[in-house]
Amino acid sequence: VSIVICGGAGFIAVNLLDEFLQDNQVFVLDNLSRGSLVYLNKYADNPNLKFIEHELSDLDQTAKVFGEINDISSISEVWHMAANSDILAGVESPEIDLRDTFLTTHCILLAMKNVGAKKFYFASSSAIYGDMEGKPASESSGPLLPISNYGAMKLASEGLISAATESFLDIGLMYRFPNVVGVPATHGVIFDLIRKLKNNQSELEVLGDGTQQKSYLHVSDLVGAMLYLRDYGKVNSRDVFNIGPVDDGVRVSTIAETVVNRVSPGAKINYGTSDRGWVGDVPKFSYSLDKLLATGWKPKLSSLEAVKLAVDEISVQLAEF
Amino acid sequence: VSIVICGGAGFIAVNLLDEFLQDNQVFVLDNLSRGSLVYLNKYADNPNLKFIEHELSDLDQTAKVFGEINDISSISEVWHMAANSDILAGVESPEIDLRDTFLTTHCILLAMKNVGAKKFYFASSSAIYGDMEGKPASESSGPLLPISNYGAMKLASEGLISAATESFLDIGLMYRFPNVVGVPATHGVIFDLIRKLKNNQSELEVLGDGTQQKSYLHVSDLVGAMLYLRDYGKVNSRDVFNIGPVDDGVRVSTIAETVVNRVSPGAKINYGTSDRGWVGDVPKFSYSLDKLLATGWKPKLSSLEAVKLAVDEISVQLAEF
Repeated sequence: VSIVICGGAGFIAVNLLDEFLQDNQVFVLDNLSRGSLVYLNKYADNPNLKFIEHELSDLDQTAKVFGEINDISSISEVWHMAANSDILAGVESPEIDLRDTFLTTHCILLAMKNVGAKKFYFASSSAIYGDMEGKPASESSGPLLPISNYGAMKLASEGLISAATESFLDIGLMYRFPNVVGVPATHGVIFDLIRKLKNNQSELEVLGDGTQQKSYLHVSDLVGAMLYLRDYGKVNSRDVFNIGPVDDGVRVSTIAETVVNRVSPGAKINYGTSDRGWVGDVPKFSYSLDKLLATGWKPKLSSLEAVKLAVDEISVQLAEF
Repeated sequence: VSIVICGGAGFIAVNLLDEFLQDNQVFVLDNLSRGSLVYLNKYADNPNLKFIEHELSDLDQTAKVFGEINDISSISEVWHMAANSDILAGVESPEIDLRDTFLTTHCILLAMKNVGAKKFYFASSSAIYGDMEGKPASESSGPLLPISNYGAMKLASEGLISAATESFLDIGLMYRFPNVVGVPATHGVIFDLIRKLKNNQSELEVLGDGTQQKSYLHVSDLVGAMLYLRDYGKVNSRDVFNIGPVDDGVRVSTIAETVVNRVSPGAKINYGTSDRGWVGDVPKFSYSLDKLLATGWKPKLSSLEAVKLAVDEISVQLAEF
């Protein structure tokens, strides 16, 4: 049997590979628009990993590829980690999230139906909650009123997966990610700030007034939680879990200061005036982890520890490339 | 100024026209896949109504049509009532709801952005709630796990509208419809049962065991609630309301008996054995109307009254065509 990872050359998926490759044949599908083969280099000699460059929003081709994979090795699990990761670009141009974040889900589900693959694991997002105005976002919160097209198309994907679980999937497990940090970073506030500061070592411009506060989970904890829930045994056939650290998060100003201290000590930080960095940004977000913690899982790192580790890791990553 | 009604030749939209045509120029867009020009006949001589046969899931053409309308008469409101209404067909073929229920929303929103139209009224659905296992479905309920692609694509549309309200809409008002009955009926349990019984006047086959219980709102009450909320003045820029009758609903067996009594008294009713009529059906659904009732609106008819009136109306309608 085999595991298919959609968007498998991207940041989070690459961190799943070590686990999956221990016992499984793994097929990585990725259009390399944001992922990179560089991230797969360490597995170049591993016969259990097969990379296929593929556009997942193409319905016919996706059905074809899944059929070919299933003929080689029956598909036991599909992990859908492909999405647009540039939320702001998706606000300007809704067709980006329509195609990359949502139509990918549609095409993957139809391809799974064709070959009879029945277990689907999905990278959803806290962005589906929109602006909860400080109220804790729990899995039982509603209404779900996302404020970005990214959040809207993650919510749309959840809906399709839920319906598919009624009709042909055995498992539709949806993980609502917080902000996730670590390497190989491709985007995100730490990545952006480090890049900016490398270009101009004396000053750092920060979007927003620095008071925006968010939870950050290290990718190692995220991967741990996803696999823990997959194997937990007491999830529903369709189920949804918030995943995150157990704290109130970290302010953007703290991240900016950590980046400055690591990359260019003494650089001046220039903040904006708004409590939102951009349309679709939420100034303060509180994430309920009660459902996840009730399963017995715990994160190893706090938001602050995750940010500090990721600043180190991304500084090294950006020095290498 | 003008009002654009998308899917305007369909069942519910036609019932809005009397109200809209009193004070407004109205443009009806419809691809006539389920709607019919017959329903617009009574307005044939009304200079304020303009019908345009149009496929709303075509992005470029929708932008073009909205531009042309806006040049004639600045678009003040857009009502999106277009959707696939055959839920079962959408379960079999997800591309139907993808195109008719969801991509229409995407295309309309982009067309509105182009011309600067800022008020959007949307026919959402109780189907977004999925199977709440008897718990009352309120606007603050979560998670939203639809069990049909129809429900999934209504949820997806809500997400897009919500995001658009953050970015360029002034009003994104989402009405979550219950089962709605009345004329001109194009589908639904009453319509199906009457048609079946006209074909075979001695026996009536009913999907499911007849115990499925649902709320039914008469379309006159639905139209009343939508216009009431539009004019209420205290909705949020993005807001969502359950609309329905204030009762526990009616069993399918009651509907079947009402149909038999009206259309072919004495006919034998044959029930199935499942408490679900089809994949995507929910046996018992409880709908919270607290938010709606707090605005002061009340329905005129109960579920049972609505069903009885609609059985009369649809019997007449099906005798005419």
